[in-house]
Amino acid sequence: MQKTTEESKTTMAYKPTKIGVIGGGSWATAIAKILLSTQETIYWYMRRQDQIDEFKRVSKNPSYLTGLKFDTERIFFTNKINDLVKQVDTIIFATPSPFLKQHLKKLRVPLKDKIIISAIKGIVPEENLIITDYFQQFYNVSRENLAVLAGPCHAEEVALEKLSYLTIACADREKAKALTQVFSNHYIRTSTTEDVTGIEYASVLKNVYAIAAGVCHGLKYGDNFQAVLMSNAIQEMQRFSSAIHPLPRSIDESAYLGDLLVTGYSKFSRNRTFGNMIGKGYSVKTAQIEMEMIAEGYYGVKCIKEINESFHVQMPIMEAVYNILYNRASPVLQIRALTKLMH
Amino acid sequence: MQKTTEESKTTMAYKPTKIGVIGGGSWATAIAKILLSTQETIYWYMRRQDQIDEFKRVSKNPSYLTGLKFDTERIFFTNKINDLVKQVDTIIFATPSPFLKQHLKKLRVPLKDKIIISAIKGIVPEENLIITDYFQQFYNVSRENLAVLAGPCHAEEVALEKLSYLTIACADREKAKALTQVFSNHYIRTSTTEDVTGIEYASVLKNVYAIAAGVCHGLKYGDNFQAVLMSNAIQEMQRFSSAIHPLPRSIDESAYLGDLLVTGYSKFSRNRTFGNMIGKGYSVKTAQIEMEMIAEGYYGVKCIKEINESFHVQMPIMEAVYNILYNRASPVLQIRALTKLMH
Repeated sequence: MQKTTEESKTTMAYKPTKIGVIGGGSWATAIAKILLSTQETIYWYMRRQDQIDEFKRVSKNPSYLTGLKFDTERIFFTNKINDLVKQVDTIIFATPSPFLKQHLKKLRVPLKDKIIISAIKGIVPEENLIITDYFQQFYNVSRENLAVLAGPCHAEEVALEKLSYLTIACADREKAKALTQVFSNHYIRTSTTEDVTGIEYASVLKNVYAIAAGVCHGLKYGDNFQAVLMSNAIQEMQRFSSAIHPLPRSIDESAYLGDLLVTGYSKFSRNRTFGNMIGKGYSVKTAQIEMEMIAEGYYGVKCIKEINESFHVQMPIMEAVYNILYNRASPVLQIRALTKLMH
Repeated sequence: MQKTTEESKTTMAYKPTKIGVIGGGSWATAIAKILLSTQETIYWYMRRQDQIDEFKRVSKNPSYLTGLKFDTERIFFTNKINDLVKQVDTIIFATPSPFLKQHLKKLRVPLKDKIIISAIKGIVPEENLIITDYFQQFYNVSRENLAVLAGPCHAEEVALEKLSYLTIACADREKAKALTQVFSNHYIRTSTTEDVTGIEYASVLKNVYAIAAGVCHGLKYGDNFQAVLMSNAIQEMQRFSSAIHPLPRSIDESAYLGDLLVTGYSKFSRNRTFGNMIGKGYSVKTAQIEMEMIAEGYYGVKCIKEINESFHVQMPIMEAVYNILYNRASPVLQIRALTKLMH
């Protein structure tokens, strides 16, 4: 009997019912809003108890998307990551990638039986790994239990309930399909793909290209050049994706090209803003201090640069951003050299 | 002897030296500016003598790019198209496509020995032909003597000397190469392609998609959706191009994707503005009357729709724009239906 129960348990289709969110930023907040449109209750971990207290008091995130009211009765807040993990079957990580390890350090509960969704668009800095690889290698989460939530999707427009499209990437198509239910409502349409690795690298690269777009804007290049830059960027992304994870993919789909465009053209993008400051003459250090949010592309470009040392893909835009951010190269000269390679 | 001369004449490489511009709008004016950076003198036809007189008096185009000073000593103005054609070896047509036939009606000098460059992004309305097909069929210009000048390139940024990229499409690669010299300077980089037909249809379609982008914006769809729309649009363009003119082309190159982006995202684009008015509730007629410039996509969508009746390419964005503009279909309902086909 025991065995039968076990068997029926393992063959039972995955149905996410207890869902936890990790992170207190704008994307985490937008995700919580979406979840509460499809779920009765959610679990939500934030690091700081004072933020949670204030959230409960004012019924909104005191720091991000502050126009958004929440029914806090339907949210189980906690600042103890273990308490959250224990109670849920599905965990959505939505912290900036440089902070991920700080949160996970406190973890004592195993993750290997949970469905882990990364909504992080970045790289674990020291290990230089994309998020799903990191969970697989350091937390024994199997490929089938790892998913990625991809844009094109600004948190700010989710807050306004503007129609947006999400993509769930998961090696296990059934799980991806089950997860679309969790994220689909009258303003969110969700589709699925198996290209977890391609989607993750695309979301890292688009931040690098958004920095490039920002630098060019800061240097007073115009819209004509921006269009050329984006066209070359998507081709560069295609080359890198094909080399690192060969798969028949259409790079012009929303999760790749759309995500690049929404970030590269956006006034909301912190990566573009960061690049813009550098193009205007701020030092990298000063731009980082001035910005209150993390520009993920700063870490992303270093990772891609190092990975590409084995692949030798021709990536002039990535190289230019890397040289500006890490080699104190002149933005003026780097972009001028880049313009000669564009077409 | 005579024969030898004739032979050496026909095998002599094409070198554009006497170049004429047809048209008095902003794109014609931008082209004239570029030409004057590489040529001593140019020939310039404008329909209205009073405009020419005023241009000479104030040293600038009185109606377009009015911030731009010209050395009118270096321009041979004429309002007689035959006078221009007689004197030049290379003619750049840069009128709105709906007016092309009006200008050509007066033509008595044959075009067949000239190099014709279309800088028109549109369709000859009644014949429903792209420009190069029209010149070939109605003016006996051979394929080898027909070229297309493609963006992504706003006239406004050319006026400001912002770095821009042009593509010369010509079946004769040597001629295309010769023409790059004419258009390349310190703020314009020019490349070549043989895909004349693909480039022409792409430039028609991007105006249709810019109208779609404008309608969606007018209906208050946001940047997230715009990115999805553009991703779906480039895929639609790829499908149509492959069907109508099969050729190994990368649709993500600047002349296709870049041109779509610069128009779709631009505040300068008249097609986007036209769509925006319709999205905001103007009737098609009122929007046309309110706008002083021609929205090429209005004619373009009709042409593509009719051509596609033979090809049956799946083109939901084009269909939606067509239904809105020609079938009095509700923009709200058309776009809502369209959102269900996007991914």
